[in-house]
Amino acid sequence: MRHYDRAAIDGMDKLYRINLINSCSGYKSANLLGRISPEGVHKVAIFSSVVHMGSNPPILGFLLRPTSVPRHTYTNLKAYGHFTINHVHEDIASEAHHTSAKYEEHVSEYEKTGLQWEFKHDFPAPFVKGSPVQMGMRYEEEYPIEINGTLLVVASIQQLYLREDLLTDDGFVQLSKGGVLAINGLDGYALPKLIDRFGYARPNREVISLTGVET
Amino acid sequence: MRHYDRAAIDGMDKLYRINLINSCSGYKSANLLGRISPEGVHKVAIFSSVVHMGSNPPILGFLLRPTSVPRHTYTNLKAYGHFTINHVHEDIASEAHHTSAKYEEHVSEYEKTGLQWEFKHDFPAPFVKGSPVQMGMRYEEEYPIEINGTLLVVASIQQLYLREDLLTDDGFVQLSKGGVLAINGLDGYALPKLIDRFGYARPNREVISLTGVET
Repeated sequence: MRHYDRAAIDGMDKLYRINLINSCSGYKSANLLGRISPEGVHKVAIFSSVVHMGSNPPILGFLLRPTSVPRHTYTNLKAYGHFTINHVHEDIASEAHHTSAKYEEHVSEYEKTGLQWEFKHDFPAPFVKGSPVQMGMRYEEEYPIEINGTLLVVASIQQLYLREDLLTDDGFVQLSKGGVLAINGLDGYALPKLIDRFGYARPNREVISLTGVET
Repeated sequence: MRHYDRAAIDGMDKLYRINLINSCSGYKSANLLGRISPEGVHKVAIFSSVVHMGSNPPILGFLLRPTSVPRHTYTNLKAYGHFTINHVHEDIASEAHHTSAKYEEHVSEYEKTGLQWEFKHDFPAPFVKGSPVQMGMRYEEEYPIEINGTLLVVASIQQLYLREDLLTDDGFVQLSKGGVLAINGLDGYALPKLIDRFGYARPNREVISLTGVET
């Protein structure tokens, strides 16, 4: 095994360290965040830090990194209060990644990529058309992280749209049926295939099956 | 598309909602956290909430949910200060998932599963043997999340071990070469295959390749 201690990591070339440490948490979610700028521009940008925080109430979080995300994204999200989260699937991988380019606030990424927006049920932010999982989100809380100046943004799910064929009888959403991608590091996109559902584990080694899903 | 608004989500059967909302953030990382209990028991448990928070310093975070994680896990992590994060690969998927069973603090999950521990370079917590990415972590900060009583734990990477064949020339770690898994929902395990690295995106649509990786 290759071994790096903390001193070796701190002494690395910056780009090498960014690639390495961005791979270290494992696979990351692949999401497009949609919003409307104060000037009415339809903005969309890829995020790999969206994380499940709780089911009741339904809460997701994501991190803003001061060095990689323009500050106006955050200012706008907070002031406007509503945005969307849309899953990236294999057909839009390249276009989705291209939203990571640093466009100015008055430029819509929709004009620079093949992505298309759509509105649904009066929700005040645009969804990404064709995404198999789309969520209308409301800003709730924020936590400045002292150690590195990032910001954890906490938001609640207000509207949820799912392609019917992904949904199983017990509420499990089989992402692989929608071609949903995972992100490896900064720029690697991977297509996962479900291998199994293992059910609820109990100490006595009985496993209660929650499945019935095609793998 | 199936549509659920917030009222529909709040009114769902509890297990249905847990399955549904746990799938909504997209794919999650699959990690085993290793620690030593105050009585010297080697503990290991699966987590799907580990998230990249920054490269310099190298920081990861994860969430503790009061309803699903025994409180002593957290008390112990904080008091002891060191633990390990180990990637779950396809050969240990079933055993890794079984660590989610609620064993008492004096029982070692290593005795109840096929997992094996190992120590390296005097790091004061056990790693999971055979894991293609192993990290020695140090507790740094915590943030109680008001909206749902979860806790974000922030930790730094002190020691990093990687299987040599995963590492590419620019520091990118190709997780698919190690059979590293991603988690879908509560109990679904998926094997991702890298489809491409898209490089650093620029507004003028040139893409600087960071790759040279076998896909």
